[in-house]
Amino acid sequence: MSAGKLIGIGLGPGDPELLTVKAVKAIKAAPVVAFFAKAGRRGNAREIADCWISQTQIEMPLYYPMTTETRFDNPVYVETLRAFYEKSSAALAAHLEAGRDVALLAEGDPLFYGSFMHIYVRLRETFESTIIPGVPGMAGCWSAAETPMTWGDDVLVVLPATLPEDEIVARLAHCDAAVIMKLGANLPKARAAVMRAGRAARALYVERGTMAGEKVVKLADKADDTAPYFSLILIPGEGRRP
Amino acid sequence: MSAGKLIGIGLGPGDPELLTVKAVKAIKAAPVVAFFAKAGRRGNAREIADCWISQTQIEMPLYYPMTTETRFDNPVYVETLRAFYEKSSAALAAHLEAGRDVALLAEGDPLFYGSFMHIYVRLRETFESTIIPGVPGMAGCWSAAETPMTWGDDVLVVLPATLPEDEIVARLAHCDAAVIMKLGANLPKARAAVMRAGRAARALYVERGTMAGEKVVKLADKADDTAPYFSLILIPGEGRRP
Repeated sequence: MSAGKLIGIGLGPGDPELLTVKAVKAIKAAPVVAFFAKAGRRGNAREIADCWISQTQIEMPLYYPMTTETRFDNPVYVETLRAFYEKSSAALAAHLEAGRDVALLAEGDPLFYGSFMHIYVRLRETFESTIIPGVPGMAGCWSAAETPMTWGDDVLVVLPATLPEDEIVARLAHCDAAVIMKLGANLPKARAAVMRAGRAARALYVERGTMAGEKVVKLADKADDTAPYFSLILIPGEGRRP
Repeated sequence: MSAGKLIGIGLGPGDPELLTVKAVKAIKAAPVVAFFAKAGRRGNAREIADCWISQTQIEMPLYYPMTTETRFDNPVYVETLRAFYEKSSAALAAHLEAGRDVALLAEGDPLFYGSFMHIYVRLRETFESTIIPGVPGMAGCWSAAETPMTWGDDVLVVLPATLPEDEIVARLAHCDAAVIMKLGANLPKARAAVMRAGRAARALYVERGTMAGEKVVKLADKADDTAPYFSLILIPGEGRRP
């Protein structure tokens, strides 16, 4: 008996129809469908893929060990997360060793931030694997905002709002277009950085792009400081246009 | 009679199965399918979408007025291109005014570089429009390379190889991960910039990612200086990993 294959599936930005044809086929064909979720929740990934999963498939939720955003410089957090990825990889390996293909769902694109890669690097030496790319969350957001992002020679910078404010300001100085991801509790810091960098005029705030509850506003018009983790700030480029 | 709708369709990186379910539905439903191509060619966009287009649909190739890469600082080039976009927009507007929806194909994602946006900004004030995001070419390339691109706090920079060499070097100093697009004749310059920036060790060269003829090699192992326009250099991030 040959071992199963690990398939990393990009789910796209949230609309279930923004999965690729290839991703849908791969999900439907996989005997095991695995996905990350907060403990006690169904999880956003499982929600997005819902209409493509049948009751005959084995579902394998991988529950994160912590529900709040702990700081990454906390060694207990890092160790807890490492143990979680080790345990999850072992659980998937058991299915793969038994000859069952495993579709591991990844919001957005599998190799662009996100948890999938931590499993992938642990299993790829031992098992056959394949990646199905997805529409990144940021592309779903700029399409929701109907905003051309990059033109001609524009340089785009993608940066996580988890960085220190000074560093965000510095990075915004060296680009034409920017995406600031992972807002959550970092929104006030990111907003301050955008203002200090003199980039507030064209900045947009987008929440739940392509999903129910989608929200697009100018950053300047966003009155409160509440943002889900999967929201972002877009600063569109203005490059050459014939 | 109400006017038709302009639909910007992200085709993804090249594999026809990497169109989204939504894009396939929209192409099939549109009475008119428009796409850019070099004069005398069928064009890459039309090729990618081939299996989703039927003989009952009106096809509308928009042929670029020049076949070689002319420098953008040439005013004749800019004027010729402007006239081309104006003429193309007028041709699409005629269908829209007649009440026919027009699906305008865009390689990768419609709002991330590319020609679609030049038509979009000309027609969006007059006609209803919608954007269907796509998997960007670069995501197809890093999935073909099986290379995680960004981890944790990694900053990604996307920059066109059309920029001056010194500017590419400077931008590479301010990022963890990088994508250098639009190589073509700019490959020697981009390669020199990557080496000067001290980023050659992990750099990959990817050509025709997810398509027939796909090629992935270490940049250091790429012996010649020949690259199609739709090839790129990837410098993957190495951010925090529990």
